[in-house]
Amino acid sequence: MRNEYPLTLNDLSYSIAEVILGERIKIMTNHFEIGLYTFAELTPDPRTGDLISPAQRLQQFIERVELADQVGLDVIGLGEHHRPDFVSSAPEVILAAAAARTRSIRLSSAVTVLSSDDPVRVFQRFAALDLISDGRAEIMAGRGSFIESFPLFGYDLQDYNELFVEKLELLLKIRANERVTWSGQHRPPLDDRGVYPRPLQEELPIWIAVGGTPQSAVRAGTLGLPLAVAIIGGMPEQFGPLVALYREAAAGAGHDPAKLPVSINSHGFIADDSQQARDYAYPYFEQVMNKIGRERGFPPMTRDHYDASCELRGANFIGTPDDVIEKILFQHEIFGHQRFLLMMGIGTMPHDKVMHAIELLGTKIAPAVRREIALRMK
Amino acid sequence: MRNEYPLTLNDLSYSIAEVILGERIKIMTNHFEIGLYTFAELTPDPRTGDLISPAQRLQQFIERVELADQVGLDVIGLGEHHRPDFVSSAPEVILAAAAARTRSIRLSSAVTVLSSDDPVRVFQRFAALDLISDGRAEIMAGRGSFIESFPLFGYDLQDYNELFVEKLELLLKIRANERVTWSGQHRPPLDDRGVYPRPLQEELPIWIAVGGTPQSAVRAGTLGLPLAVAIIGGMPEQFGPLVALYREAAAGAGHDPAKLPVSINSHGFIADDSQQARDYAYPYFEQVMNKIGRERGFPPMTRDHYDASCELRGANFIGTPDDVIEKILFQHEIFGHQRFLLMMGIGTMPHDKVMHAIELLGTKIAPAVRREIALRMK
Repeated sequence: MRNEYPLTLNDLSYSIAEVILGERIKIMTNHFEIGLYTFAELTPDPRTGDLISPAQRLQQFIERVELADQVGLDVIGLGEHHRPDFVSSAPEVILAAAAARTRSIRLSSAVTVLSSDDPVRVFQRFAALDLISDGRAEIMAGRGSFIESFPLFGYDLQDYNELFVEKLELLLKIRANERVTWSGQHRPPLDDRGVYPRPLQEELPIWIAVGGTPQSAVRAGTLGLPLAVAIIGGMPEQFGPLVALYREAAAGAGHDPAKLPVSINSHGFIADDSQQARDYAYPYFEQVMNKIGRERGFPPMTRDHYDASCELRGANFIGTPDDVIEKILFQHEIFGHQRFLLMMGIGTMPHDKVMHAIELLGTKIAPAVRREIALRMK
Repeated sequence: MRNEYPLTLNDLSYSIAEVILGERIKIMTNHFEIGLYTFAELTPDPRTGDLISPAQRLQQFIERVELADQVGLDVIGLGEHHRPDFVSSAPEVILAAAAARTRSIRLSSAVTVLSSDDPVRVFQRFAALDLISDGRAEIMAGRGSFIESFPLFGYDLQDYNELFVEKLELLLKIRANERVTWSGQHRPPLDDRGVYPRPLQEELPIWIAVGGTPQSAVRAGTLGLPLAVAIIGGMPEQFGPLVALYREAAAGAGHDPAKLPVSINSHGFIADDSQQARDYAYPYFEQVMNKIGRERGFPPMTRDHYDASCELRGANFIGTPDDVIEKILFQHEIFGHQRFLLMMGIGTMPHDKVMHAIELLGTKIAPAVRREIALRMK
């Protein structure tokens, strides 16, 4: 059949595919997606001690999404946290405001802490986001690396894994069926109840976000769901087996791994000069990573560790556009991934610096990476 | 003390007060608020049989809020329903999109079915809406006149009142305190947990919506919360004692009734000619009211009932701008209320007709009503 057509999907360049077939088949073509994610931190600037207001923080977020959309970035992800040092406990509400100011960028949670939420409400909120954004909503579901939502919503951390498994099952059931009959241990049963509204996209994308747990990757593959791998430390190449395991699990369950996108999500900062980027970003990375480290009992980050993480084989994408292009392409040889999301401006970095970095990501990095990966995939 | 000032707040006209004291004290001045509310119904047009898509319905909603904001209306309210014939099960998400396209209009639920929701999540969603809208969010909480959310979220209708009382108590506690210790029957306890983000407004407005139950009005008054009275049938003047009871309860609990706004929420449609407005709107009202009536065992609405409801002493605001001005002012003599919300375009009325009606409400009705009520309050 394919030979009847002079061009296959794989031969089409991004822009032609976009014109001919519309935005939504991007993932099935060579279009490598590049985007941003943030947890909307609200922390004092370690350089100045300044602390902006929660409203300013969200205003800045909206402006960053507007710019990301204008420079052609593909995705914005927003985290869910329930702490005073983060502004976003209801990411869909904030993403909806961003949707009203943008045209093309996809709008994702990063992540939805599904274990401590109600899958019916989650689906309803994302369906609303999908409808008002003309089909740009995505759920990135995870077990949650922060755990403050468990006591807040009355869940037991002992059920950490079981909660996620059960709630994911229900969420997928709601996605597949307008009316649902279901029962489980951690949510009241549903007896042929309808869940409305239905989203615009025929299948609301549900990504599974993993930190490195093999069982989580196997689960995503077995269910045939796209995989988002957070790589925020260590040597990224060590995650190669995790991605391979995911694709094996997918194939083993009868899903075509070629149709299941993988996303690499990492921290970074981009500036016009390599050393300047590292020096500028360091206090922000130190502040955030050491705060998380203290809570979790990790050793403090030193400048040596940080500098190592900025090298080609390290986890952080900190440097010039060329540095970042090189690292994305290096990792693409390992993972063969379809999406790269950068947590830009970790901590509360000054707005103008982050805006400049977003511009560099959209105008310098994304076109070069997409071009090179499209060539590789021919 | 007051005599030292040549002008009191009550003497200030709306526009002067606005300039001198800022938008947020409107309610304490003579500014009579006029707005809209909708349930975002998704029903076939009874004239044509056409059924628009959920995405179109929300697109129209956003356009209507944009117009309402442009013509100076004060409030938009959006309902929460969990049925296939309504699009809005997550009103905050949709209101956030509207927030990003508007400047001044206040954004309210109408209503939040608090009994079947989690007050922590409700507060978080509205706090996010408040932050991204520069302090324009409001919660209108009610026991819910539709009951489909109870089985959907695992609640028992037998607890209809108790659920509302308990969840309202928790919501108010969260509003007043960043960290909350609480326990009840219908939600896991909170042991000194923080709820974030905090809204921009010092006190996120929480209105209590009532249908006519005296106990509900007494509860709102006792708690010192603003009251929204839905009057969608019968003779509105019969609700006078309910509003009086509310103010008595407020005073009895030590709250100043003069500082507690009352809103009258009713159905209506506005056109350039009285008879034309009635004739045009009739099939839409008949469709919606009879559908609700069938579900609740009410007798069908006849054209005679409908025509009576359009008269001065009837409940519906259907007619020319002059008809509607006259009826608002008539009711103001009864209720002395501070806000009027009109459910415009009941059912799925054609977008252009509703847009024209919104324009008339903002440009013809609101200025005349505000002027007259400001004179009365001198």
